[in-house]
Amino acid sequence: MRRLVTLLTDFGTADGYVGEIKGVLLSRVPDAYIVDITHDIPAQDVESARLTLARVWRRFPAGTVHLAVVDPGVGSARRALAVESDGRFLVGPDNGVLSPALLMGDARAVALAMPTSAAPTFHGRDVFAPAAAELALGAPIDALGTPATDVIVRRTPEPRRREDGTLAGEVIAVDRFGNAITNLVGRRPALLEVAGAVLPVRRTYSDVERGSPIALVGSTGLIEVAVRDGSAANLLGLNRGSVVLLRGA
Amino acid sequence: MRRLVTLLTDFGTADGYVGEIKGVLLSRVPDAYIVDITHDIPAQDVESARLTLARVWRRFPAGTVHLAVVDPGVGSARRALAVESDGRFLVGPDNGVLSPALLMGDARAVALAMPTSAAPTFHGRDVFAPAAAELALGAPIDALGTPATDVIVRRTPEPRRREDGTLAGEVIAVDRFGNAITNLVGRRPALLEVAGAVLPVRRTYSDVERGSPIALVGSTGLIEVAVRDGSAANLLGLNRGSVVLLRGA
Amino acid sequence: MRRLVTLLTDFGTADGYVGEIKGVLLSRVPDAYIVDITHDIPAQDVESARLTLARVWRRFPAGTVHLAVVDPGVGSARRALAVESDGRFLVGPDNGVLSPALLMGDARAVALAMPTSAAPTFHGRDVFAPAAAELALGAPIDALGTPATDVIVRRTPEPRRREDGTLAGEVIAVDRFGNAITNLVGRRPALLEVAGAVLPVRRTYSDVERGSPIALVGSTGLIEVAVRDGSAANLLGLNRGSVVLLRGA
Repeated sequence: MRRLVTLLTDFGTADGYVGEIKGVLLSRVPDAYIVDITHDIPAQDVESARLTLARVWRRFPAGTVHLAVVDPGVGSARRALAVESDGRFLVGPDNGVLSPALLMGDARAVALAMPTSAAPTFHGRDVFAPAAAELALGAPIDALGTPATDVIVRRTPEPRRREDGTLAGEVIAVDRFGNAITNLVGRRPALLEVAGAVLPVRRTYSDVERGSPIALVGSTGLIEVAVRDGSAANLLGLNRGSVVLLRGA
Repeated sequence: MRRLVTLLTDFGTADGYVGEIKGVLLSRVPDAYIVDITHDIPAQDVESARLTLARVWRRFPAGTVHLAVVDPGVGSARRALAVESDGRFLVGPDNGVLSPALLMGDARAVALAMPTSAAPTFHGRDVFAPAAAELALGAPIDALGTPATDVIVRRTPEPRRREDGTLAGEVIAVDRFGNAITNLVGRRPALLEVAGAVLPVRRTYSDVERGSPIALVGSTGLIEVAVRDGSAANLLGLNRGSVVLLRGA
Repeated sequence: MRRLVTLLTDFGTADGYVGEIKGVLLSRVPDAYIVDITHDIPAQDVESARLTLARVWRRFPAGTVHLAVVDPGVGSARRALAVESDGRFLVGPDNGVLSPALLMGDARAVALAMPTSAAPTFHGRDVFAPAAAELALGAPIDALGTPATDVIVRRTPEPRRREDGTLAGEVIAVDRFGNAITNLVGRRPALLEVAGAVLPVRRTYSDVERGSPIALVGSTGLIEVAVRDGSAANLLGLNRGSVVLLRGA
C-alpha cells in the first residue's frame, strides 16, 4: 500500500485548513502516514511552491503521494490534476506547481473529476485530499479522471549567453538564511558578478570571513550567493529576479 | 485502540514546550500517531483556538483524541477537562476552547484529577498530555476524573435582525490570506454591506477581477469577504468584530 | 527497532530543506516515525537550540534518535557527531548543540565519517540524516565513526554569589509568550530583583493581577519572569543576558 502522503501548502496552520485536510485523509486512509513538507509557502506563491516541490519530491520513496496545494485560481476553470511520475504520485492544481514531476519523461496526468459537492473555495479539502486518499489506497490515477495532456508547465528561466561570453542568470529564490539561489549551474573555477561585487565561486561558507559575501555551489548544484553568518539578501539587496553574471576565473 | 492524537496549541514550536508534550505522549503510548493541527494560534487567543477546533475536530475519525491547550488561566482555579463527544475525545482547559464538542447533544465532560506533581505553569505537559495518553490507551473518560456539568461554553455571536429587515453580523476571524469570515450563514442571492461597499454574494474568488473585493459562501457555509489575489482585511480594514450587513438581492 | 526520529532545526520549512531530510530518512527507514520538535529556532542560534534540546531529549523513550541541526559552521573543519547518552541517540554538529546529552555521565560520542559526496553546505541532508537513519535501523554508534573525546560542550552560565549574599543570575531565554527564563534554580520564599522591580517568587501567573509582572518557578525548575496575560520581555525590556538578582524573602 502507499501509505506516505506529504503536504505542501500556503495555508499556514492556525486557521485549521490543514487540519481539515489531515482529518479527511485519516478518515479515509486510517493508516496513512502524513508528512508535513511545509505550510509556510508565501500566500499564493506558486513559484516558491514549485521550487520547494522540486527539491523534495524525488527524495521520497516510490509510491509516495505528494499533495501540493497553492491555488490562487481555486473555483475557477483551472483543472485539478493527479500525476504519476517516476514512481511517485502528485495531486494539485493545474497552475504549474506540479511542474517538477510533469517535466519527467514518463509523467502521466489526469484531470480530476470534480465532485459537485466541493466547496468552490477549498478544493484542498474537497478535491485534492480525497484524490490523494484514493491514490494512497492504491487506486490507479486513471480511475480518478480523464487524461490531461495540455497541462501548465513552469520552468526555471534559462540563463542567457552574452556576446562577451558571460552567462547572465538571475536569482530564483531567497531562503530563510538570506541565501540567494540562482539559475546558474555550478562550476569552479568561475567568477560571479553580483550587486557590483565580483566573487570567485568557492566551496562553502567558511571559505570567507564572517560577514563577507561568497558565491558557492549550493546543495542542488546551482550557484548561490551567501554571507557567512549573515544574509546575502539583506547585505547585497538581492531579490527574486536580481541579475547575476558568471564568467571564467 | 485509539492511536490518533492531535495537538492544537498557542505554544509555537521553538521553545520546546510542544516537544515536551510529544515526548510525554510517545513515552506513554509508543504507537501513538500524533498529528499537528497547529501551534501557531495567537498567544492566549482562546477564541481563535475555539474556531480552529470547530473546523477540524469532527473531520477526524471516531476515537481520535484531540489535545487543545490554549490556557491563559493555567495554574489558577480553572478546571482541566476531558470530553467525549460524537465518538471523539478532547482534553483541554475549562475556558471555552472545547466548546465545539461540548455543544453536541451527547457530550460528556469530566474534571481531570490534578496530579500534585504538576508544574503550575505547564498543565499541557503534566495534566493534559497524560490524560490524552490515558484516553489513547483506551481508558474511559470517567476513569480520569469526576463528572463536570457547569462547564464554560463559548458560542459564536448570533447575527441580529434589524427593523429594516437586514441581518447585522460581524467578522469572527481573519485568515492567513486576509479573508474575513463572518457569522452570517451563507445564502444566495443576497447583498453584503461591508466597510461602505455593497457586494453581491458570489460563488468563488474568480467571479471578480484581480484585486477586487468579493463576498462569497466559504467552506464552512459562512459568508466571507475576500479580495481576489489580495487581502480583504488589508484592503477594507477588517478585523474581528467589524460589522457586516446582509440583505436580499 | 528504533523507529522514533525527532528533528530540531533552524531551517524553517518553506525552502524544502526539512522536506529533503524527511525524504532521505523515509527512503532509508520506511517505517521511521518522524517527530518535528521545531524548525523555527532563530537562524544559526546554537544557544536556543541547545536549550530547546535540553527540554525535550529525555522526555522521549529510550531508543529515540534526535537529529539536531543548527549548523553555522557547515562545511568547515567542525566535526559531525553521533552521541549515545542515557539510552537515546543524537546526531548533530560538534558546536555545542548536543551538550545536554554530552554532559551525562554515560555519554559516548563518535565523529561521523564524512561521505565524499556530501554537499559542503547541507550536511543535514547528506551527513546527519543518513547517520540518523543508520541509528534508526539499529546500527551501534561505533559503526558510524571514530570515538570523539574533546567535543565542544556549552553550559548555561552559573549564577554568582555576591558579597551581600544575593545570587546574580541572568536571563537565558525569552519564550513565545515573552516569559524570561533565568539561570536561577527556583526556591521559595525568595525575592527577585529585575529591571528595577522587586518581585516575590510565587507559584503561578494567576497569583497577580492581569498585566502585572511576576516571578515564579517555571516548568523546568528555573525562575522565570512573566507578566500575567502579557509579555515580561516587552514590559520590562528583558533580553537574553539581562541581569536578575535573587535574595531571601
